[in-house]
Amino acid sequence: MRGDDLQKRGPQKRGRPPGRTAAGEATRDRLFDEACQMLAEGGYEAMTLRTLARRAGVSPGAVYKHFPNKAAIVMALYERLSLGFAETAHLPSGSWRLRFEAALDGSLGALAPHRDALAGLVSVLVGDPTQGVLAPETRAARHRVESVFQAAALGASPRPPQPEALGRALYAIHLGVILFWLLDKSPGQRATADLRALLRRGAAPVALALRLPGAGRVIQQVAGILEDGILT
Amino acid sequence: MRGDDLQKRGPQKRGRPPGRTAAGEATRDRLFDEACQMLAEGGYEAMTLRTLARRAGVSPGAVYKHFPNKAAIVMALYERLSLGFAETAHLPSGSWRLRFEAALDGSLGALAPHRDALAGLVSVLVGDPTQGVLAPETRAARHRVESVFQAAALGASPRPPQPEALGRALYAIHLGVILFWLLDKSPGQRATADLRALLRRGAAPVALALRLPGAGRVIQQVAGILEDGILT
Repeated sequence: MRGDDLQKRGPQKRGRPPGRTAAGEATRDRLFDEACQMLAEGGYEAMTLRTLARRAGVSPGAVYKHFPNKAAIVMALYERLSLGFAETAHLPSGSWRLRFEAALDGSLGALAPHRDALAGLVSVLVGDPTQGVLAPETRAARHRVESVFQAAALGASPRPPQPEALGRALYAIHLGVILFWLLDKSPGQRATADLRALLRRGAAPVALALRLPGAGRVIQQVAGILEDGILT
Repeated sequence: MRGDDLQKRGPQKRGRPPGRTAAGEATRDRLFDEACQMLAEGGYEAMTLRTLARRAGVSPGAVYKHFPNKAAIVMALYERLSLGFAETAHLPSGSWRLRFEAALDGSLGALAPHRDALAGLVSVLVGDPTQGVLAPETRAARHRVESVFQAAALGASPRPPQPEALGRALYAIHLGVILFWLLDKSPGQRATADLRALLRRGAAPVALALRLPGAGRVIQQVAGILEDGILT
């Protein structure tokens, strides 16, 4: 809708985002890929829009039309990655453990091609109050991803206690695994693979514990703490 | 030793770190306090040594003698906080749960006066490969803190299985709690207090599980994953 309006006004108009012409999209894609490359090489602080323009072989004005600032590149990354995950995530029918495993697979799989760029962005992802993963400004992308983990618990059979709260807790665990993976210095991130194997084995006693009376209340407490503290 | 050598050469000599004269120490303390204030107000990226000099009422040259770059301020913060914690940590005799609780209390207590500065530094603490909490360059301070958590497990009675590995795992949990606390947006960080209460209650079933055969092997796996991946 907004793209159509802009196209009517003319996609070349200075200072406005370009319309979704094929050429405009191709330029945007090239800039985006080059930006990811730069993030992977030198991190967020070292990246400048001027160098991005030079490396992508476009004018600085063209960069600013697509990405008025570095934050816009980060937002584009969130959009792409969260949409890519939400659109392709496949949850098998079965227990919440199986479905969580599949959601985690899907999320790490969607992020994997961009791991180096994301590792160069950790300072922003975790530490930036307006562009971080937990910032109010990135809520749409965050909720898009969280909804898959919610679905993993809500649609599970047998139905776990407090599935909505469990979904929230699983989403937070998933964020922790991603952070570990981005910080993981072992060859081929084998430590993350080991961590995931351990989590998989650890899920069995957790599933048993969830059948105990009072388990639902504990899950709700966990979800409440996450909401109150970081997932607002 | 190094301080004495420098004093003989004269603490005012341009370009060298000043000797440990009372006036030099007082200037350094003032600069450090002002730097913490600036980190709390605007974060790491916004801080400049020039503005620090102006705000502390000293010459830029005097700043550079004490802190040749911003990284030196971060290193000074690690030194102070880790020494402050290691020197004052008091571990009661008793179970590893009691002793871990005391170590966690002591660590958060030592960091608490600097929470705003540390919150402004999260991007560096987590995301900077040379100045972060997990960087090789900060290993000395990290090991100083970890040794308290090791002691909490090694000196516990009854003795837990694989106490060294358990100490490492407890240190990592402690890092996770600190990160949560720094990101915690709830009033007065009440979500962190709730998280700690939940951890305290959750430690009881964990302590029971540690008596099961095979528990030592799981703890070793956890410690191995941490070492391989992030605590190198």
